[in-house]
Amino acid sequence: MTDCQAEGPGNMTPVELYEKLSAQGDKIRVLKAEKADKSDIDAAVQLLLNLKVDYKTVTGQDYKAGCLPDDGTPTQDNGPSVGDGEDTVDPWNVSTSSAKGVDYDKLIVRFGSSKIDQELVDRIERVTGQKPHRFLRRGIFFSHRDMHQVLDAYENNKSFYLYTGRGPSSEAMHVGHLIPFIFTKWLQDVFDIPLVIQLTDDEKYLWKDLSLEECHRFAVENAKDIIACGFDISKTFIFSDLEYMGMSPGFYRNVVKVQKHVTFNQVKGIFGFTDSDCIGKISFPAAQAAPSFSTSFPQIFNGRKDVQCLIPCAIDQDPYFRMTRDVAPRIGYAKPALLHSTFFPALQGAQTKMSASDPNSSIFLTDTPKQIKNKINKHAFSGGKDTIEEHRKHGGNTDVDVSFMYLTFFLEDDEKLEKIRQDYSSGDLLTGELKKCLIETLQPMITAHQERRKQVTEETVQLFMTPRRLDFNY
Amino acid sequence: MTDCQAEGPGNMTPVELYEKLSAQGDKIRVLKAEKADKSDIDAAVQLLLNLKVDYKTVTGQDYKAGCLPDDGTPTQDNGPSVGDGEDTVDPWNVSTSSAKGVDYDKLIVRFGSSKIDQELVDRIERVTGQKPHRFLRRGIFFSHRDMHQVLDAYENNKSFYLYTGRGPSSEAMHVGHLIPFIFTKWLQDVFDIPLVIQLTDDEKYLWKDLSLEECHRFAVENAKDIIACGFDISKTFIFSDLEYMGMSPGFYRNVVKVQKHVTFNQVKGIFGFTDSDCIGKISFPAAQAAPSFSTSFPQIFNGRKDVQCLIPCAIDQDPYFRMTRDVAPRIGYAKPALLHSTFFPALQGAQTKMSASDPNSSIFLTDTPKQIKNKINKHAFSGGKDTIEEHRKHGGNTDVDVSFMYLTFFLEDDEKLEKIRQDYSSGDLLTGELKKCLIETLQPMITAHQERRKQVTEETVQLFMTPRRLDFNY
Repeated sequence: MTDCQAEGPGNMTPVELYEKLSAQGDKIRVLKAEKADKSDIDAAVQLLLNLKVDYKTVTGQDYKAGCLPDDGTPTQDNGPSVGDGEDTVDPWNVSTSSAKGVDYDKLIVRFGSSKIDQELVDRIERVTGQKPHRFLRRGIFFSHRDMHQVLDAYENNKSFYLYTGRGPSSEAMHVGHLIPFIFTKWLQDVFDIPLVIQLTDDEKYLWKDLSLEECHRFAVENAKDIIACGFDISKTFIFSDLEYMGMSPGFYRNVVKVQKHVTFNQVKGIFGFTDSDCIGKISFPAAQAAPSFSTSFPQIFNGRKDVQCLIPCAIDQDPYFRMTRDVAPRIGYAKPALLHSTFFPALQGAQTKMSASDPNSSIFLTDTPKQIKNKINKHAFSGGKDTIEEHRKHGGNTDVDVSFMYLTFFLEDDEKLEKIRQDYSSGDLLTGELKKCLIETLQPMITAHQERRKQVTEETVQLFMTPRRLDFNY
Repeated sequence: MTDCQAEGPGNMTPVELYEKLSAQGDKIRVLKAEKADKSDIDAAVQLLLNLKVDYKTVTGQDYKAGCLPDDGTPTQDNGPSVGDGEDTVDPWNVSTSSAKGVDYDKLIVRFGSSKIDQELVDRIERVTGQKPHRFLRRGIFFSHRDMHQVLDAYENNKSFYLYTGRGPSSEAMHVGHLIPFIFTKWLQDVFDIPLVIQLTDDEKYLWKDLSLEECHRFAVENAKDIIACGFDISKTFIFSDLEYMGMSPGFYRNVVKVQKHVTFNQVKGIFGFTDSDCIGKISFPAAQAAPSFSTSFPQIFNGRKDVQCLIPCAIDQDPYFRMTRDVAPRIGYAKPALLHSTFFPALQGAQTKMSASDPNSSIFLTDTPKQIKNKINKHAFSGGKDTIEEHRKHGGNTDVDVSFMYLTFFLEDDEKLEKIRQDYSSGDLLTGELKKCLIETLQPMITAHQERRKQVTEETVQLFMTPRRLDFNY
């Protein structure tokens, strides 16, 4: 099954999807009755699950055998977090009971995306002529939608653009917040393409007890940390929704287009909104969808509507873009492609996402070398054994050790990382020594970030945030 | 009971409103048990009805004695058209079974607004030093909210601004569409104040099967007819939502502010939206609310947020502004004041609003003198008797005669209008003669409008629609 077949409910009506689901259910029953190969049954079940996700996206309802889609009338809905086992993943909640973190393979099946396999990583290397980023080599970006299609077009000299973003809920950003930006900068460099970065200050105003002014100030402060990641000013446009909506002839039009083609039933199904949510939350997904279309940036793309968009983001943002991909063909636009990352674990363990409001849950971009050292030594969940003797004998568990996980994100040297894994697992490397490796990796990285951020003047921020042509010909 | 007490649920919680309603119900029972004066009971019942409207506005639910407000959970709702007797009045439906049209006195009670009485008309005359417009003299603008407060402030040299609008659903405008504009122009002239006119092309895109481009083109075409009403270009800003949202730093911010403070439950109660409505419709009321606040027009009001807004509109638009008035104090703004007009009857009778899609339902601004004559002679519902003999003997009924109704809108001369009323009622004036009066009133009026519209160049439209300072000091 190719990626294109794996999803794409946009062109099917609810009834067509229902019929396809019924037929697929029948097929599985036949396969089981015939005691077919397990792999055949598994493949058929995976297609069924994908269809169920599509069905929910399109109708806002769960598929029930024998019940035709109830188009338009309210349904009982238990919210958007598809509860499969114990993991919960949506834009506002990520939780799992496993110390190893979320089961990402299951998530791929549930969300109907495709795994970034070695073949795709190799292909990116071939197409760009560059060694794949460590996030690709190590499965940190693990899932995608339509990446092969983007590469096909790129090989035929049809370029694309990048879109990523951040919800500026406070001034404080931690190292986990940098993951999409570090990776997006690499993509910008190796593909040499424009990038738009959305700061959803309107979203934070709607969801949090903050004023418009505070949210906008956080957006500008966060922009400085983002700029410090090294983006090319001639190819990067950073915008705050509150500001850009009032500056662009194209953005609001696309927001309204999306809003016309998504019902409350659908956002209820996708995001779990209820009748007591404010109408701002209910309509916001359209504002996150709109930058997926090049006409939202007429100053960059010169009015062209056929430039495809590639969105690197954490997997919890996927519901926004499943919705976007569903709407795109109905308003005459190409579906955005996606690259999904895993979550960055909290220092306390991989069960939850980090919290910007708990200073001990992660390493912040403002932490001093001493704070970094103390936090890691004191709070980083260890996969080591209780005593040195036991550790030497049985070795540590890198699957649950947060210091080791952080090293997979930030230590560039593959061989060194593998040696640490082996030595820690065998017991040769003690927990304190492992933590020291991480401290020595993060301290210079954060210090360098702070140095670069200091160089970011208000004028630089203003320039990044000014709607303008970018250095690219469309 | 003053106007200020008559409404204003904005500062009361659902529970406070519930308690006030319960207490008022008890009071009425006591009054009835004590066989109090009918006028006292009527006044108490009117207050109860007003409180019920407030309660529905705030909670999105109908008040039920003994049931505390169910904050936040979905309720059964039969839509927004408060069914009292047979009249239905909301932004999308106006209907009545009475040939005299909607019962406007009942509407005032239901909506919790105040009647424009002779005292208010006299006061407007005193304050402006001008003879009141015929729409005021004849009760065509019949209801208001906070107009005394606007006049109090005006007398203390505190100015205000006007806001009205139109939904551009087609190029074709009929004479009924001119009512708010004719009256607003008079208000602009006698008070010498700025005016903003909203063209909700986004609304029409969301509600109708039209493209964004069509809706925006209709907005620009309609602007020409509006400009032809004679507005002062130095004091008037006309804007299309699709255009202005992308041009103003203030508009989107106010839209988001309103969106944060209105729940789906509330718009469900006020406008009758359902779960299968698109999220664009659900959030649109905020776009119609935002121009009620002067900060939506920083270029005009120089950032001042305390300039009050007065909205002349047909009464069917009141639900938008009840919602706006409820939100205003919660986001730190003054409530807009309102002046409500009756509906302009269709040629076929006052039971319904006219339809821009039925060319015979009204006189269009593009009709030729001959078309005007034919339409009135052929389609205008007559209050005359079946034969000349019967008519001479019993006289005609001006309460249901559409030609006479149209004359109350457009014939400026009060004495002439009164003479026509008397002569038609007595049978001295025949239906053909009455229709001739109307034809001779409308033909030159429409011809003059067409002449003025021809003078409106694209450049003039562009200037009216350019965000800019107006000729007024704030």
